[in-house]
Amino acid sequence: MSTSLWQPWSLRELVSDLDRGATTPAQAMARSAARIEATEPDLKAWVVRQEPGTEVGRLGGVPLGVKDIIDVAGLPTRCGSSLRADATPADEDAAIVSAWRRAGAVPVGKTVTTEFAFFSPGPTANPAATDHTPGGSSSGSAAAVGAGQVPLALGSQTAGSVTRPAAYCGVAALVMSHGRFPVDGVTGLSESLDSHGVYAATASDLALAWSALSGEPDVAGEGVPDRVEPLQVLLWSAAPLGVLDPAMRDALDTTRAALEASGARIDDFPEEQLVADLTVAHPVVMAYEAARERAAELARADQLSDPLAGLLRAGAETSRRDYDAALALVAQGRERVAELLGSYSVIVGAAAPGAAPRGLGATGDPVLSRAWQALGLPVVTVPGLRDGEGMPLGIQVIGHHRSETALLSAACTLEQSLVS
Amino acid sequence: MSTSLWQPWSLRELVSDLDRGATTPAQAMARSAARIEATEPDLKAWVVRQEPGTEVGRLGGVPLGVKDIIDVAGLPTRCGSSLRADATPADEDAAIVSAWRRAGAVPVGKTVTTEFAFFSPGPTANPAATDHTPGGSSSGSAAAVGAGQVPLALGSQTAGSVTRPAAYCGVAALVMSHGRFPVDGVTGLSESLDSHGVYAATASDLALAWSALSGEPDVAGEGVPDRVEPLQVLLWSAAPLGVLDPAMRDALDTTRAALEASGARIDDFPEEQLVADLTVAHPVVMAYEAARERAAELARADQLSDPLAGLLRAGAETSRRDYDAALALVAQGRERVAELLGSYSVIVGAAAPGAAPRGLGATGDPVLSRAWQALGLPVVTVPGLRDGEGMPLGIQVIGHHRSETALLSAACTLEQSLVS
Repeated sequence: MSTSLWQPWSLRELVSDLDRGATTPAQAMARSAARIEATEPDLKAWVVRQEPGTEVGRLGGVPLGVKDIIDVAGLPTRCGSSLRADATPADEDAAIVSAWRRAGAVPVGKTVTTEFAFFSPGPTANPAATDHTPGGSSSGSAAAVGAGQVPLALGSQTAGSVTRPAAYCGVAALVMSHGRFPVDGVTGLSESLDSHGVYAATASDLALAWSALSGEPDVAGEGVPDRVEPLQVLLWSAAPLGVLDPAMRDALDTTRAALEASGARIDDFPEEQLVADLTVAHPVVMAYEAARERAAELARADQLSDPLAGLLRAGAETSRRDYDAALALVAQGRERVAELLGSYSVIVGAAAPGAAPRGLGATGDPVLSRAWQALGLPVVTVPGLRDGEGMPLGIQVIGHHRSETALLSAACTLEQSLVS
Repeated sequence: MSTSLWQPWSLRELVSDLDRGATTPAQAMARSAARIEATEPDLKAWVVRQEPGTEVGRLGGVPLGVKDIIDVAGLPTRCGSSLRADATPADEDAAIVSAWRRAGAVPVGKTVTTEFAFFSPGPTANPAATDHTPGGSSSGSAAAVGAGQVPLALGSQTAGSVTRPAAYCGVAALVMSHGRFPVDGVTGLSESLDSHGVYAATASDLALAWSALSGEPDVAGEGVPDRVEPLQVLLWSAAPLGVLDPAMRDALDTTRAALEASGARIDDFPEEQLVADLTVAHPVVMAYEAARERAAELARADQLSDPLAGLLRAGAETSRRDYDAALALVAQGRERVAELLGSYSVIVGAAAPGAAPRGLGATGDPVLSRAWQALGLPVVTVPGLRDGEGMPLGIQVIGHHRSETALLSAACTLEQSLVS
């Protein structure tokens, strides 16, 4: 049998059609699948294909901002530090950047980070009010999403580096469970604490992004049925920490009322003392590990800001016994909170003490994230509330370990309840 | 100053617009750039951005086939061998797959390879005539592009594994210079010989793909001026090898006439003996290195085909002295050919002895590639010619080391001259 029925497919025509919008990426994929369907019985060119139904490259064409401690091939990683001013372009993408590229997202550049993702701020302003801090350390990614420069941007969190900037800039963010994706190619601070984060306009947008990254369902996608089981919420007041400002206390009341109106069952979070203890243990772990992970920078501490030099020196002087005690407390806390969460969907509380402080000289306080970050739990910042001056206030929703999809579903329910 | 002029950009709306074709990836990039332009003076969210003018993700939405010795995250790498039948999905992309993803291409599956990229064929047929071999070892990628299943597919070449299947299937292919991209994540045969390859419908398509991958100019793009300097061609007859069939000898005559008509200056390639020597040295290097790179498979040779078991056993028995002598001959050859190419643009010759042989039990002879592959030079197979039965005949164009862009320009000139 001789046949010339099959003709090659012109790449140049396809790219031109994609450029003009005459073909969409999804249509190109569908055309390939149909062509394979038609010719493969006789041709047998394929060993294995992506699962049918897998939405290959769901985020194809989506511009992505990347925090400048995360490697992007071809761009330098400067980490907000003069020590890295002459950094050469990275040869390879960080593993997490590869994963987002596989989902289709296209990195368009590197966003401002505080110095090595600690406290010394870069020049970034808050898109809601440019004389206020955007928070840190993932300042540029939060601000870029807040200002609509990109619909998606990556951050990382060791203390409150994703949750807080999202709250301050009025956008949504997901902190992934610790260890959920590898951190290769990320200039981190603390192996036990560093987690990946991602910013988008809303929790619904995060659900789409997470689905594209993880292959799990898009819990806010079209045709997804409304929640049947009511949310079981532990509402965390954080009162014993004594840091919430009046606007944020009001915001928590509004959140409670909105959740109740949506049919959620709410109980008060009963382990305030445990959170207080974890909030103290967290910086011990962070300093101890940072001094070791950033030993090269510790050796050149004269070129660091005082806060970062202080962290690294404190960590270098932290005893192994204190570090181990902190880790043991975290391990206990992890068990206790897992037990508590056995009967609840999520924990809900304030993402930051209040709105973004005025001034660009400091990035605000991560105190409300330390405990949850020590436990390595996934967290979503839900936007929507504002203070009397119109500045954004963020609510954080804390989920079960490695249950990002269920967490995002709960966060979307809260987001909906806040606008209805 | 307080402003809420800036609003976030809905990811869900953008993805929906991209799905419907209401927005193209290029427009999404342009919108991001414009938004950054407008807001960045006040926001300062970015440290560094992709170079203006860089076409980020030029191949966004292009379906890509990947030869099944090259890792694609999430898919198994089975290497056409029962030894790998139970391979688990790869955790990471091969470096070359990452690079193509950065250019925007979307892997849709793995294509059939001969057993460990040597001679034992898989089930793939030739799209020009399904009772003929597609060639090997990158059989599935060549056939998939030939049948229009995908506009782009990856191969690899140790002897003639890219050049020959392209010729047989009537498509274009580029073998990159040895070492041009890393081979991490590729199950290779021979560190000194393995090169990356890519298939597309035409040399013009390859020029676009190469530009997207390398960042170098698209030499066949719109607005590129016609060639001013005539091509300086060394025409390689390969007569002393005694392998060309009459149809291919005619094809070479046609090629000479077409090049002359296009204004090229042509001289006969003067080093036939050197090519003959390299053609003998090549399999010595290949066998010696393959026995070592595939030592795990050599240890289970009873589960290999006779040809592959023979190659590995022969390589294991090759003396270090013979291997070194072959490498020394290659090094001399490299110098001599570089000297020759000092006065010429390219070498042009037959890509295979003739059209694809009938039958699927063997993949044809790589003899016309061995010398050039030993030298590590980039090669383009140019399609367009046919034998009396309508079967494709391929012409190979061999370029200067690491000068893929200039080589593609010459190949496009030849391609044009063959149709005019």
